[in-house]
Amino acid sequence: MLSIEQYQHEFVSYLEKYETGKEPKNLYQPIQYILELGGKRLRPVLALMTADIFGEDYKLALNAALSVEVFHNFSLVHDDIMDDAPLRRGHQTVHEKWDINTGILSGDAMLIMAYQLFENYDAETFMELAKLFSKTALEVCEGQQYDVDFETRNDVSIPEYLKMIEYKTAVLVAAAMKMGAIVSKASQEDQDNIYNFGRYLGIAFQLQDDYLDAFGDPKTFGKQVGGDIIENKKTYLYLKALEFSNETDCEELMALFASNPEDVSTKIETAKQFFVNSGAAEATQKAIKEYTLKAFTVLESLHVSEDKKTMLKNFGSHLMNRTV
Amino acid sequence: MLSIEQYQHEFVSYLEKYETGKEPKNLYQPIQYILELGGKRLRPVLALMTADIFGEDYKLALNAALSVEVFHNFSLVHDDIMDDAPLRRGHQTVHEKWDINTGILSGDAMLIMAYQLFENYDAETFMELAKLFSKTALEVCEGQQYDVDFETRNDVSIPEYLKMIEYKTAVLVAAAMKMGAIVSKASQEDQDNIYNFGRYLGIAFQLQDDYLDAFGDPKTFGKQVGGDIIENKKTYLYLKALEFSNETDCEELMALFASNPEDVSTKIETAKQFFVNSGAAEATQKAIKEYTLKAFTVLESLHVSEDKKTMLKNFGSHLMNRTV
Repeated sequence: MLSIEQYQHEFVSYLEKYETGKEPKNLYQPIQYILELGGKRLRPVLALMTADIFGEDYKLALNAALSVEVFHNFSLVHDDIMDDAPLRRGHQTVHEKWDINTGILSGDAMLIMAYQLFENYDAETFMELAKLFSKTALEVCEGQQYDVDFETRNDVSIPEYLKMIEYKTAVLVAAAMKMGAIVSKASQEDQDNIYNFGRYLGIAFQLQDDYLDAFGDPKTFGKQVGGDIIENKKTYLYLKALEFSNETDCEELMALFASNPEDVSTKIETAKQFFVNSGAAEATQKAIKEYTLKAFTVLESLHVSEDKKTMLKNFGSHLMNRTV
Repeated sequence: MLSIEQYQHEFVSYLEKYETGKEPKNLYQPIQYILELGGKRLRPVLALMTADIFGEDYKLALNAALSVEVFHNFSLVHDDIMDDAPLRRGHQTVHEKWDINTGILSGDAMLIMAYQLFENYDAETFMELAKLFSKTALEVCEGQQYDVDFETRNDVSIPEYLKMIEYKTAVLVAAAMKMGAIVSKASQEDQDNIYNFGRYLGIAFQLQDDYLDAFGDPKTFGKQVGGDIIENKKTYLYLKALEFSNETDCEELMALFASNPEDVSTKIETAKQFFVNSGAAEATQKAIKEYTLKAFTVLESLHVSEDKKTMLKNFGSHLMNRTV
């Protein structure tokens, strides 16, 4: 087993050798650009680590890991068009640097290229990986659609919100780990369990993201603190605050999340007071702990050595204690 | 063997049973809409017919045929966004009826759903189909990018143009037929030959489209006659006219294809005169015949009965003598 940093390093070395420099260059240069922008490479690292955990050399999972990363970046390129986002990881988004049409077409090519990476496996493995990939990719699209739909709805329930973040974020983390298990020929039971570990951890991760967006340390949090509040995003914090508040407070909070004031700092502070006073902040931290615990409980059923379970647990704890 | 109309009918019946009515409806309704808009269903019919020709029941090819049709419609949805097209088959385009974001996301889902249709085959066949599909789909993206690039270039050569229409149009016709051959377990040689038959026929078909756009009968041609001229599209007719003209005529033609006059009828007439007088119209008809002949020559090497070769030939002749 390697350390997280070593998996990251191995993955990035492999990514750098990935040939995307083909003609026509207006199609492939944006792909090269977005793939080289960096990021935590969380999903591919999890795929490699899982392959190791189930006994095979992580190198066997490099193409599956790369496929997941190419898909993840495809979804960023298309989502950034839909969100009209100017920046991604501190750099221009693809549709800003080029144009919307380039973003659409280069994104399409990436989705296809993600499937092609599975061609490096035998037919049975190819089919297992591609089936899981298609199911997951479609769920990610569904999650994105729910996210869009929720923007104009005032009656989003907590279960609906949880399903949205599960589809939009958690299933790809889960699929990345299951792919590592598939290439390592793990049993169906172990495959399902590692999938659920990733799924619960992914949900916890996204809830953590919601929490840190409001309460993160501006010094260490990568994005603008309060970004979700400025954009009136109905996060877990917001939905829980509505659930816990009386009618007057609900109306005030909903009015706040319909406003677009020039002075965002007051809006952010007011929203955070609502989140704390209603008990939503505490409930969110509780939910993060619960999903993390659910993930750890699944680990116990895995047919791997105790030190490997500990390693996965440490990785999960590390992820959940992050401040970025 | 069935008639073209019977294959069409069988395909449409199968398409109508295809379940796309899932949640979230804002993602799946546009997919249902575009798939039900109609069209000639040329590609799926060719897939079914080819499966029959190589000895298997055409029914075995229904899922592959549907995959090709779903992919084709995916490419229409995204291309219509890029071309800012208001109409498709006489109805509103998806991004017009809904919005651009819906067009992007529903299109993405269709590309994934096209892959999922191969899951109805065994692992070996799944891999063969998916590999061919990915290669083809990426070429279609490349063809679309070349088409976009050519809009702002004044030095497009005939070989470059032919490669563009091969990628943008012909390879999907070719792949549809090869998929029919794959599910029928045809030999590699027969698979390659039927692919090339479809490829040559697809190029002839697109050149025919270029020709009919200028010289088609307004009564029977589905689209607006002269549409390519109005939009200054550098078609085969235009490129050949430039090749055959002296410097003065070239400059005049290029000026005409840089203009956007209100009175389009004079522009169309002038362009058509250029095409006829330069010999470009004749050269285009010659090229159509050559590619059709290439397709028919490939047929001779197929290991199928003479009456099946005749059937494919009749289909090709029918397609090339169309006026729509």
